[in-house]
Amino acid sequence: MGPLDESRMMDPSPKVLDAIRFVLVETTHSGNLGAVARAMKTMGLRRLDLVNPRSSPDAEAVARAAGADDLLATARTHRALVDALRGCRLVVGSSARPRTVEWPLLEPADCARRLLAEAREGEVALVLGRERSGLTNEELARCHFLTRIPTDPGFSSLNLAAAAQIFAYEIRRAWRADAEPPPVASGWDPAPPEVLEGFHAHLAQTMVDTGFCDPAQSRKLRQRLRRLFNRARPDRVELNILRGILSAAQGRKTPARFRKTDSPTDSRGQAAEVSEE
Amino acid sequence: MGPLDESRMMDPSPKVLDAIRFVLVETTHSGNLGAVARAMKTMGLRRLDLVNPRSSPDAEAVARAAGADDLLATARTHRALVDALRGCRLVVGSSARPRTVEWPLLEPADCARRLLAEAREGEVALVLGRERSGLTNEELARCHFLTRIPTDPGFSSLNLAAAAQIFAYEIRRAWRADAEPPPVASGWDPAPPEVLEGFHAHLAQTMVDTGFCDPAQSRKLRQRLRRLFNRARPDRVELNILRGILSAAQGRKTPARFRKTDSPTDSRGQAAEVSEE
Repeated sequence: MGPLDESRMMDPSPKVLDAIRFVLVETTHSGNLGAVARAMKTMGLRRLDLVNPRSSPDAEAVARAAGADDLLATARTHRALVDALRGCRLVVGSSARPRTVEWPLLEPADCARRLLAEAREGEVALVLGRERSGLTNEELARCHFLTRIPTDPGFSSLNLAAAAQIFAYEIRRAWRADAEPPPVASGWDPAPPEVLEGFHAHLAQTMVDTGFCDPAQSRKLRQRLRRLFNRARPDRVELNILRGILSAAQGRKTPARFRKTDSPTDSRGQAAEVSEE
Repeated sequence: MGPLDESRMMDPSPKVLDAIRFVLVETTHSGNLGAVARAMKTMGLRRLDLVNPRSSPDAEAVARAAGADDLLATARTHRALVDALRGCRLVVGSSARPRTVEWPLLEPADCARRLLAEAREGEVALVLGRERSGLTNEELARCHFLTRIPTDPGFSSLNLAAAAQIFAYEIRRAWRADAEPPPVASGWDPAPPEVLEGFHAHLAQTMVDTGFCDPAQSRKLRQRLRRLFNRARPDRVELNILRGILSAAQGRKTPARFRKTDSPTDSRGQAAEVSEE
């Protein structure tokens, strides 16, 4: 199982993700509605709530949703923020700029962990404000925590959907970390030392046979090649390929065997022995 | 001082961010060019390289850049990926789907840490592919690592700019965490892609010249060798050694030159050219 292969993961209760809603307040551009839906759906989130959207989900929204328009279709629309937050035990508001009033401020990763932890207990919400002006102080006062994505102080203008993507990404990350066994570097099995030794002996002999170097003077050179292949940590198939190349260099193959004039039975060549992955 | 107040942070060398380039391959929608520029600039990244863009930075791109159009103006356009990667010591490719060929795969956070660590030593690149089809296997074979953003298996359709935003966010996150950088295995300077390309061309030719394989049938084999040497990341001296061995295998050296009967002036051999460490 690869580190990112979720299809074979034990189901870490996707229902918990359904307890997390993204609430968009007075979004101006319908394209952003679609892009937020897409950002959410890629991360397994489905619950979208709209407060007084300035444009309704139109063709532009559906185009930008790129297949996530089911989230637009099931999104609920509210007149007031308080309606969109109904039933939520935890509300976190996204704030683009530092506020005059001190408020508990979470990094996106901490925000994600907290939303996820409380989503196991009940409904939770992340609130994202208007494209230009964000959330008002009154709206922020409805939130238990604020969260802010760290940006370059000289250019902090995050797109609404880009911010939603980062929060959704962090939520999925926290969700996977909860559920997944620690990643294993998989599918790759470096050859054991004795097999690597055989390769190095073959390489050294080939270097002599081809006239590349004087065996009496090439100790340092061989060390250097050992260091190179120790970094690469070849597996058995790779060593077989390399040894095939060395054998050919030693003159045990003839280039003529692949020419058109050869019999077809010769044309498979050494490559066929090692080409299966 | 709040945890997110960067304006009062000690300057953790923003120059290192300038050594990180985002390379976009054959981007179709100009809007995405602008959105990627905005995503990068919010995180303090500035260096954008375009390979064969299908649309040029137009009004739509500038609109979506929302103030990051300076990155579009200074973006360099290239005909081939290898040109966009010139001078890079580390190349990471973004892959939306699992590949048949195993390739070292990084999570975005690890990708960011690695890019940042090596950006202290030289130029590094993150390569993002086409909106619909991503990067080809040949393009991925130019990369030392792949990185993939974990998504919902049922809907993995990340927007290009959304992916760029996540990577840029993770890079800034690593950069902020990194006031004192982890020690990098230093004094080691991997050869840039264009030099590695020369080696791979030489290797392929030698495989044909020595009769090891049929050029028409060895594509997969060559991919496999690329993967091996991408793991090893040879430096220039090592590539010189390997190319010396290849030249010898091609018959440009004669084994006789090291035999006792040879004149002493010949006995220094090729090894002397490369044995200094």
